[in-house]
Amino acid sequence: MHKERFYTLTACCPDRSGIIARVTGFIAAEGGWILESSFHSEALPDGGAHYFMRIEIRADSLPYPLVEFRRRFAPIAADLAMDWRIADSAVKKRVAIFVSKQEHCLYDLFARWQAKELDIEIPCVVSNHDVLRGICEWHGVPFHYVPIAPHNKTQAFAEMRRIVEETHADTVVLARYMQILPPDFCAAYPNRILNIHHSFLPSFVGAKPYHQAHARGVKLIGATCHYVTAELDAGPIIEQDVIRIDHSDTVEDLMRLGKDIEKTVLARGLRYHIEDRVLVHGNKTVVFK
Amino acid sequence: MHKERFYTLTACCPDRSGIIARVTGFIAAEGGWILESSFHSEALPDGGAHYFMRIEIRADSLPYPLVEFRRRFAPIAADLAMDWRIADSAVKKRVAIFVSKQEHCLYDLFARWQAKELDIEIPCVVSNHDVLRGICEWHGVPFHYVPIAPHNKTQAFAEMRRIVEETHADTVVLARYMQILPPDFCAAYPNRILNIHHSFLPSFVGAKPYHQAHARGVKLIGATCHYVTAELDAGPIIEQDVIRIDHSDTVEDLMRLGKDIEKTVLARGLRYHIEDRVLVHGNKTVVFK
Amino acid sequence: MHKERFYTLTACCPDRSGIIARVTGFIAAEGGWILESSFHSEALPDGGAHYFMRIEIRADSLPYPLVEFRRRFAPIAADLAMDWRIADSAVKKRVAIFVSKQEHCLYDLFARWQAKELDIEIPCVVSNHDVLRGICEWHGVPFHYVPIAPHNKTQAFAEMRRIVEETHADTVVLARYMQILPPDFCAAYPNRILNIHHSFLPSFVGAKPYHQAHARGVKLIGATCHYVTAELDAGPIIEQDVIRIDHSDTVEDLMRLGKDIEKTVLARGLRYHIEDRVLVHGNKTVVFK
Amino acid sequence: MHKERFYTLTACCPDRSGIIARVTGFIAAEGGWILESSFHSEALPDGGAHYFMRIEIRADSLPYPLVEFRRRFAPIAADLAMDWRIADSAVKKRVAIFVSKQEHCLYDLFARWQAKELDIEIPCVVSNHDVLRGICEWHGVPFHYVPIAPHNKTQAFAEMRRIVEETHADTVVLARYMQILPPDFCAAYPNRILNIHHSFLPSFVGAKPYHQAHARGVKLIGATCHYVTAELDAGPIIEQDVIRIDHSDTVEDLMRLGKDIEKTVLARGLRYHIEDRVLVHGNKTVVFK
Repeated sequence: MHKERFYTLTACCPDRSGIIARVTGFIAAEGGWILESSFHSEALPDGGAHYFMRIEIRADSLPYPLVEFRRRFAPIAADLAMDWRIADSAVKKRVAIFVSKQEHCLYDLFARWQAKELDIEIPCVVSNHDVLRGICEWHGVPFHYVPIAPHNKTQAFAEMRRIVEETHADTVVLARYMQILPPDFCAAYPNRILNIHHSFLPSFVGAKPYHQAHARGVKLIGATCHYVTAELDAGPIIEQDVIRIDHSDTVEDLMRLGKDIEKTVLARGLRYHIEDRVLVHGNKTVVFK
Repeated sequence: MHKERFYTLTACCPDRSGIIARVTGFIAAEGGWILESSFHSEALPDGGAHYFMRIEIRADSLPYPLVEFRRRFAPIAADLAMDWRIADSAVKKRVAIFVSKQEHCLYDLFARWQAKELDIEIPCVVSNHDVLRGICEWHGVPFHYVPIAPHNKTQAFAEMRRIVEETHADTVVLARYMQILPPDFCAAYPNRILNIHHSFLPSFVGAKPYHQAHARGVKLIGATCHYVTAELDAGPIIEQDVIRIDHSDTVEDLMRLGKDIEKTVLARGLRYHIEDRVLVHGNKTVVFK
Repeated sequence: MHKERFYTLTACCPDRSGIIARVTGFIAAEGGWILESSFHSEALPDGGAHYFMRIEIRADSLPYPLVEFRRRFAPIAADLAMDWRIADSAVKKRVAIFVSKQEHCLYDLFARWQAKELDIEIPCVVSNHDVLRGICEWHGVPFHYVPIAPHNKTQAFAEMRRIVEETHADTVVLARYMQILPPDFCAAYPNRILNIHHSFLPSFVGAKPYHQAHARGVKLIGATCHYVTAELDAGPIIEQDVIRIDHSDTVEDLMRLGKDIEKTVLARGLRYHIEDRVLVHGNKTVVFK
Repeated sequence: MHKERFYTLTACCPDRSGIIARVTGFIAAEGGWILESSFHSEALPDGGAHYFMRIEIRADSLPYPLVEFRRRFAPIAADLAMDWRIADSAVKKRVAIFVSKQEHCLYDLFARWQAKELDIEIPCVVSNHDVLRGICEWHGVPFHYVPIAPHNKTQAFAEMRRIVEETHADTVVLARYMQILPPDFCAAYPNRILNIHHSFLPSFVGAKPYHQAHARGVKLIGATCHYVTAELDAGPIIEQDVIRIDHSDTVEDLMRLGKDIEKTVLARGLRYHIEDRVLVHGNKTVVFK
């Protein structure tokens, strides 16, 4: 990422001849200086292809504000049937963090945020337990305790949406938040809710996956960061990684090592997200690193 | 692995106090010099534990041949309710290799064998296609073409078992052999048939797994080396590894990268096997690396 | 690691026949139940070998306290010319953390400590800057600001040693502490001061290593956790790991990714240390994972 | 890589506004369909930047042969002060392989070539030993035995250059070729000779690096694939990777594991090279994967 202020244009559209020329020709004509650019053509099962791009333009190379760029670029985007957006590096993403009791992901995000490595605002932490209030408040982040019980789920999730809206969060990170978000919550923030969960080769369904992995004698355990959709743990994959284990590792060791890989993968996935590096098409991501 | 001739004692038994003392005390009393030793206690779901050990003893430190060691050790093993065996490093494992059309694993095994990195005999290669005969015969390895068709499966697999028996193979490696061995074949060589297959996070069932992985946008692809049991691809896992991919990789790239990880993981698994490093208990391995 | 209280015996001695039998025979005779054991014979350049062992014994399986075990085992250890010690899992290691301005390692250690993943006492944090006081004090850990200037180095390091002594720390972790400890400080705590530093292939000497690595176009950056000796960054290596980079990563990206790998490797190295898994012989470690 | 025939344009030039627009605008105007494109701006120490690009154009989308594309594109390239070339996927790279006695890299390259994974011609293998003739000739590849002795080095290397020229090789791969090429040989094929060598953290200079790494107790060993320059092992790095080791690995184990990582890294580096994915600027590569 660059130090100068820049705009990040991300777009996808049906593939055809001349897309890059059209878009970069427009930018050049406006005087825009491209800092970084990535393009990808994804072959589709039907024989066609879909085109993805991400372009960083130095803000001071354009003679007008972003609103004017949007106005001028709109006809080209329309002509190319583009799904597009442009973000300003000077406007930080506002990331609401949902947690339960486990602190490993939260601490890791806080450390990266304090180090200015994650250049975000954290307008709130929301939890269904009251155990991580202290560390949040010490960091000056408002902590909202929203307990979830079988009888109050509808109200609880409504309250949580209210908090997200009132704090103007544009992104929600489930940092080991152990409740399942209802479908309407997921649908309200498409490709804006990130989750982290354990992954194994092979996969294990059902309860106590680390116990299952231990019983099966797997040699690797992993984690997947994905966007949340109504279908549990089946949303577009942003990032994955694994760590090696062996027979001497107990179930407790697996859970401990799982935490390490979870926080690392979540932090990478969130970074890609806030830098507008993740483009989604159907259930698949293109991540321009 | 050591250069001197040595015996490798592998054993497992119910855990209790004093097992190591009993076994190593016996070895010391006989004059045996231990080169390498590994021990592991595996907690069982029922609250008990099972004990695993692997001990390398310098051959020239014992004043008698292996047969006498076996005779003297037997009462101790019986007393400890041990499942045990002892192998002689001077007796090479005889590894039959089953292949189909893909050559990547076969070439890799041949190269390691030529380099004396895999210290084995290869008494035969068996294939359901006649395409890899040349490279085998050039290496002086008898090649047996046993085609498999729907109507001849029983005879074909019987013929393959005959070849394994006649060539005195003690281990079978499925080096991308694309036929499913029948249950009786699997049962005839428990923990002596190694297979390699692709693995993903999450897992994909059904045909064309690389196409499924590509469509799902996974970020890692992997391979698992396991012992073959009657239940397809569900036998004890010996070794696993993964390789990173991204959106720019086509299905063909995934298949190519999959080959790399397959041959690497198979070679590692086979090494652990021929060095008697893999102990199996139920469906789980202990691998003393 | 186990839940029950246990004693960890670590020892090394010249290799000879019967060491395991002698030691485990003694333990068995006393009624000791071995939970976990590891042995390693390291060939020496002179043709001999040195023997290393680590044995966990359930505390409640011995009919007397640790002091009595020490008394009874001493003659055997003397006979084998052993360098040995035995630790009690009920006595937590006391880890003093030295930091400068960077918070990534400190946060990571705090998170693991809060999660009871690192089962240690943190009696003090010492820093040559006053910037990380808040997070320490919030966690209830005394923070000692000991500035270092060219004219006061002797007094400053004396003060730091006084703090280590007064807080009864048995281990010092340099969590990105950016001052070089003087030789007498290093000598006072042999194999008890852990450091983390960046590593590259190839290595770069001199200032600004990340800039050098970037200029050289390396594809991996890494970190090494080692015990501190008087020779800078040349002490026994406890743990290492790397992370992949490419041309699109700026120097700032390298430094950020370097932090990730640093904190991970430091946490692993510290875990091995506090669980008495690291045995040192000369300038080389044996790490019984 | 794509199945259709395509042209690969690679270029670098001083960075300025409008480069992509200019190049892709030209391609679009000629009717060219871009399959894949990558761009990178590399900040230079002097404050400027250098621009790199790689563009794959479908051959059948251009109404004329490559020679005409070259003619028409030349003025634009000249105007941008470009260093550029364009390759035809239908023209296979001709790769001469130099070997000594070790076969692991050669076997691996042969297996990939047989599997059509490496889509190259291998016009010759050259060796200073006569031990790998058989496997080469069995594959139908001419084998040239050019022994190197202190008194005949000049003639030997001249002979080797003659073989490279006569077989029209455009690339030379040092597949564990254990002689140092003289500076004029290196200079004759800039960025066209690939070497693979071991790498460690930290680096070790002098003889027997695996012995040094073992003595130092390193926890990772690696390999680097680089272009050969007159300065030994200091040319532009194409690819690197590492593998984990521990105290139980002997020097022989290290050497064996080193081979695995060497052949993997060499194969990756060669693939990047033959697909024109490696651009070199000064002593640094940009690798568009």
